[in-house]
Amino acid sequence: MIVFNITAPDTGIACALQQKIDALAKPQGSLGVLEALAMQIGLVQQTLSPSLRKPVNIIFAADHGIADEGVSQSPKEVTRQMIAAFLSGGAGVCFLARQHGFQLKVVDAGIACDFPPDTRIIHRKIRKGTRNFLHEPAMTIREMEQALQYGAEVVTECYRNGSNIISLGEMGIANTAASSMWMTCLAGVPLAGCVGAGCGLDGEGVRRKQQVLQAALDKYKGDRSVLNVMRYFGGYEMVMAVGGMLRAAELKMLILVDGFIMTNCVLAASKLYPEVLSCCIYGHCGGEAGHKKLLEILHAAPLLHLGLRLGEGSGAICAYPIVASAVRMINEMHSFSKASVTKYF
Amino acid sequence: MIVFNITAPDTGIACALQQKIDALAKPQGSLGVLEALAMQIGLVQQTLSPSLRKPVNIIFAADHGIADEGVSQSPKEVTRQMIAAFLSGGAGVCFLARQHGFQLKVVDAGIACDFPPDTRIIHRKIRKGTRNFLHEPAMTIREMEQALQYGAEVVTECYRNGSNIISLGEMGIANTAASSMWMTCLAGVPLAGCVGAGCGLDGEGVRRKQQVLQAALDKYKGDRSVLNVMRYFGGYEMVMAVGGMLRAAELKMLILVDGFIMTNCVLAASKLYPEVLSCCIYGHCGGEAGHKKLLEILHAAPLLHLGLRLGEGSGAICAYPIVASAVRMINEMHSFSKASVTKYF
Repeated sequence: MIVFNITAPDTGIACALQQKIDALAKPQGSLGVLEALAMQIGLVQQTLSPSLRKPVNIIFAADHGIADEGVSQSPKEVTRQMIAAFLSGGAGVCFLARQHGFQLKVVDAGIACDFPPDTRIIHRKIRKGTRNFLHEPAMTIREMEQALQYGAEVVTECYRNGSNIISLGEMGIANTAASSMWMTCLAGVPLAGCVGAGCGLDGEGVRRKQQVLQAALDKYKGDRSVLNVMRYFGGYEMVMAVGGMLRAAELKMLILVDGFIMTNCVLAASKLYPEVLSCCIYGHCGGEAGHKKLLEILHAAPLLHLGLRLGEGSGAICAYPIVASAVRMINEMHSFSKASVTKYF
Repeated sequence: MIVFNITAPDTGIACALQQKIDALAKPQGSLGVLEALAMQIGLVQQTLSPSLRKPVNIIFAADHGIADEGVSQSPKEVTRQMIAAFLSGGAGVCFLARQHGFQLKVVDAGIACDFPPDTRIIHRKIRKGTRNFLHEPAMTIREMEQALQYGAEVVTECYRNGSNIISLGEMGIANTAASSMWMTCLAGVPLAGCVGAGCGLDGEGVRRKQQVLQAALDKYKGDRSVLNVMRYFGGYEMVMAVGGMLRAAELKMLILVDGFIMTNCVLAASKLYPEVLSCCIYGHCGGEAGHKKLLEILHAAPLLHLGLRLGEGSGAICAYPIVASAVRMINEMHSFSKASVTKYF
């Protein structure tokens, strides 16, 4: 089993960071969330002059056996089609990545089809989709370990190329269903509070999805340990994201967290290594039922509430300019003394 | 009195805009607020391919006679000092303007000091600060008309230089006090619900501010018409912003609305010409008491909630990337057919 060496940031620098922020020519606290972000980033990077370098959005994509039970609006086929859309630059996440200067990496974590070797994706297929967790564990222990390892390796590669901030996204038909199972098992929230419409189920569809998931939960005989839950219900893309998050935290990279599915990956990662949370910046609270509740459980304050429910990392990337503003604030804004402004406020 | 020719957008194009948005390769509605923004911008610009050109942040700055009553944490002196900070590039709004490519214009609408003619500001001083509205109207009818005219001219100049989107900000010690008076008179909200901490009053300071404003309200004998309220309690910077907003709407420019003070200017502008609202995009809901309520009254859904209370246009500029994302979405994202994605969702 892969081991990560993750430590909480040394808070010795916190006082100096706060002093620098409070000396900026503005009423104290008047830049709100930007001030809190500057503190967090300064702590993670252990510097009074933080920076953001080469942001990367990694999309982990895989198929889910549970999709066979009709828990999603779309058939598995769409996972493969969306890969082509990512590569052509026409998908939703692509214009956001261009706008905010993100490199886009697409990882085949376990899509249920073959891609030619020259397809411009990172080939880390564990298997052509997970098994159907209504009947059996979605993946084997060996597959889960492999997925954690691969996720970590992809992030290491970003780090070696000079990145210090990543956002993680996903594509995988039925992965909100898998995420609901992680949430109910790992956060202790009753299943009904964890199940939502995914990419567009109607009320009847949501009821059916919940019935299927309740049946799977009733049949589940595991020990509810985080590793067992991850493996029993997880998607390969989700486990890879967990591995990626843990490696990012080990390397003191900032992690921009996307929507419901990625927040569940943070939940799982934090059950393994709580210190991972120090690196997480929550981009967006979407409309998927359960996401708001899950963010509350993680004491997370998402930067945006834009009603997005696209996945792919879109909510995380949308929030990037706010993170960049925080870094500019602490680096570029003048102090009261330099600006010759009387510190009345 | 200056007259504006403001019309609501022709909605004939709405159907075609919605069709274009719904044909994009994403679950319908899954880009949430970005889709609503794309619709609004398409309507204002009357095109299926909207664009944002040369954004400008205009800071109107002026002093207020009511500041003599101790309704603000800071003395008037700070208004002048902040002008220097804007010009040096070290103020809070400056790094945001650089980050998002905004030109920054600073207008002396009525600051209580003299600036050398070569100061890099737009010289439109009406008077060295308004009169103290605890004792008399803040400005004369003639001054108000002049301020509306000047505000309109500054925006016309931006338009002539190729801009089609502006954000408006302000600097003026005690202008939250003036704004509270506009809000209570024009929106009918009891004064207590309109008064907040400004740039940093404590509880006792807020109580004193409210007492002063209540006394001014009790002594006010005007007819509560929008023009009378604007003139009696307003700041020159606020009236200029109203003039700027009305001209912007006349020219079908987009208006990024900042915080509490600028939202009160929208309120006043909309009482004169309701159609101005079609051009307004609300950037940010800040912590100032009354702002949330005022946004509700205007049926406004602000893009950000970042706890900013700096003014200067900072909340509006912070929201710009989201507006830009909406424009990229409708222009750059592929349709289902072009992306070869099956439209299951």
